[in-house]
Amino acid sequence: MTDSRPTVVIAATLDTKGVEVAFVRREFERRGVGVTVIDCGILGEAGTAASFTRADVARAGGGDLAAMRASRDRASAIPTMIRGLEAILRNLLSQGQVAGYFGLGGGTNAALASAAFAQLPFGVPKMLVSTVACGNTRPFVGIKDVMLVHSVVDILGLNAFLEDVLVRAVTAFCALVAAPPAAAVGVGRPCIGMTTFGSTTEGAMIAHDKLIGDYDVLAFHARGIGGEAMEAFVREGRIQGVLDLTTTEVADELVGGICSAGPNRLSAAAETGVPQVVLPGAIDMVNFGPPATVPERFKGRIFTSHTPHATLLRTTAEENAAIGEFIAAKLNRARGPVAVVLPLRGFSAYDIVGGPFFDPDADAAFCAALAAKLDPAIPLERIDAHINDRAVIDRATALLTAMISSSNRLEAP
Amino acid sequence: MTDSRPTVVIAATLDTKGVEVAFVRREFERRGVGVTVIDCGILGEAGTAASFTRADVARAGGGDLAAMRASRDRASAIPTMIRGLEAILRNLLSQGQVAGYFGLGGGTNAALASAAFAQLPFGVPKMLVSTVACGNTRPFVGIKDVMLVHSVVDILGLNAFLEDVLVRAVTAFCALVAAPPAAAVGVGRPCIGMTTFGSTTEGAMIAHDKLIGDYDVLAFHARGIGGEAMEAFVREGRIQGVLDLTTTEVADELVGGICSAGPNRLSAAAETGVPQVVLPGAIDMVNFGPPATVPERFKGRIFTSHTPHATLLRTTAEENAAIGEFIAAKLNRARGPVAVVLPLRGFSAYDIVGGPFFDPDADAAFCAALAAKLDPAIPLERIDAHINDRAVIDRATALLTAMISSSNRLEAP
Repeated sequence: MTDSRPTVVIAATLDTKGVEVAFVRREFERRGVGVTVIDCGILGEAGTAASFTRADVARAGGGDLAAMRASRDRASAIPTMIRGLEAILRNLLSQGQVAGYFGLGGGTNAALASAAFAQLPFGVPKMLVSTVACGNTRPFVGIKDVMLVHSVVDILGLNAFLEDVLVRAVTAFCALVAAPPAAAVGVGRPCIGMTTFGSTTEGAMIAHDKLIGDYDVLAFHARGIGGEAMEAFVREGRIQGVLDLTTTEVADELVGGICSAGPNRLSAAAETGVPQVVLPGAIDMVNFGPPATVPERFKGRIFTSHTPHATLLRTTAEENAAIGEFIAAKLNRARGPVAVVLPLRGFSAYDIVGGPFFDPDADAAFCAALAAKLDPAIPLERIDAHINDRAVIDRATALLTAMISSSNRLEAP
Repeated sequence: MTDSRPTVVIAATLDTKGVEVAFVRREFERRGVGVTVIDCGILGEAGTAASFTRADVARAGGGDLAAMRASRDRASAIPTMIRGLEAILRNLLSQGQVAGYFGLGGGTNAALASAAFAQLPFGVPKMLVSTVACGNTRPFVGIKDVMLVHSVVDILGLNAFLEDVLVRAVTAFCALVAAPPAAAVGVGRPCIGMTTFGSTTEGAMIAHDKLIGDYDVLAFHARGIGGEAMEAFVREGRIQGVLDLTTTEVADELVGGICSAGPNRLSAAAETGVPQVVLPGAIDMVNFGPPATVPERFKGRIFTSHTPHATLLRTTAEENAAIGEFIAAKLNRARGPVAVVLPLRGFSAYDIVGGPFFDPDADAAFCAALAAKLDPAIPLERIDAHINDRAVIDRATALLTAMISSSNRLEAP
């Protein structure tokens, strides 16, 4: 590695993907872009040369290739090779050697790409050419700015169709590598992260229009990955204030819907001291896919259809109380400024007078449980309006911008 | 539209995505690429100018914008606007005016992109920048060669982070538009379509190595979209012979798994007269996601875990008989040459002596039902070996290549 220009990294199992990786490397090199190939295969023989051999990767992952080959235990070998890939990639990154990561293939090779993407900062080009681009991509994409290219056909040997797909992917990737790096984010206006959902969009639009100009506003779609991404952005220092309008992911986490952001939702701002204003947006609902996918234990409950692909379950008073206690516990740990705004006339476009989820008693159970558990030092405001009403949004944004200004003053020299 | 150079088409609801579309158009135009904007919004006002207004789109879709706006019935208006978009796009395509389709946004805007992608031939650049890139992408991608860009943040107003994502997407897209068109596929060697699966990969690799050189081999991963794509490729004349090694999608269609390719699987080759050799690859299994997602009606059945994300259900003798009858009925309609090869020692890597799905009686039920219903004029060969054994693959490929040669001779002048 005497050439110090950053290169495109490709990790693959070269016993099964040797021909395809060799083809892609040739296409990159024809365009003047260098490639670093990392062989993460275990069985068979590498079908093309690698800058980092499988023995290098096994060693970097704390394993021994000969022993892994002898045991033929693929299930335990793959995590070792992934650890090795991660270690090698971190090392290349620290030397400024990574121009991007280009993955190809399904199964193990998609898992390698997923692990690599997680190591790379936003803005570093990330691409995966695969049939897995069509289907559930969450395991491969996560919160990263990945480009997925649907190969339509399997990456199993070369053919005219696949070569065309690969050449176009390489062409696009080379343009990304050649493009000047993006302007640093967040150097100008402070950035506010806001959680949104279809049924809180009206409120989100009002908030956006109020804040924009003085602030950059990043909207995160609260369907699980959105909340995870916002938490990560807060920890990375990309966000200076959180308008947590849509905490619905907590309902999915506690009741068992498909839009959970995990148990650590509402943790990042609290732990880092970033100012946050929290509302109960869409906690009246738990998300499922098409009706047939709703678990049978919810039979007899109140549902409504958002789209043919999205079925919503109305939360009960008991569930709402649990959600309130969960949120209170998270906010009580906050090291920075925090406030709660409770709209008394409904938490979503479905939870509104005449709407299918309108249930003031269930909403009141949330408010009571949260108020009972919340640290009395945390401001809690009840507003006799709906979450999408201007009165609620005006107050929430006013609280947040005051907190951000005050934080900035405290931090000024 | 006096400029006759092809342009990038962007369809969007300009009442909600006006600012973002204007930004993207500016970035394309700065790079010398023209843009045709199609406004598919219904409510509010367009936030930027469009080449085709919402009234144009409604008219092309057989609707009346004023009436749709008055009724505010979004559910029935969207299909009209999608029909209008499709009609306008077909017209632009017929005039050679489409350099590619660039979509942005979730929900309705992703649905517009999906409809547009379905109209465009392979090789025409197709991109969607959206948070839906992380999640189940099948409704948006289908069988097309789409590039999905995960925007991480919602496309709801501009901010430094989103602008960076959009600029990079436009940069990559411009490279695709500028790239020379791919060489015509299929002008050289005849192309064989082959269906594969993890548990038939060994057989598929043997077949690939036997066929490659004389044929281009396109492998389709038989998880639903793969079978659909192969059927489409056959109808488009991209494939001159089908090695249907892995008919497992029929099991998912009949029993209720997640990898169905729909009721029209095994129809395209039969209807177009393309030669096909059919085997029962992986019909011993029905596919589900993680264990918790398996419907309760299958409680007490035999399962095995392929990965933590893929749970397999063993088919019963009754189910196998139904699968056999389904396949026989499809093949009986074939206008071209067809043959069936039945391996007697198991249909997948799990259905093998000592494997979790080994069940010769269930396999025999498939063979008996298929043989009973199959047109006696169709050759049916039983081979005392496993589906991944060389004896089975050698015979299947020999039958297929003989059929293709014979078809070519018949068609020669």
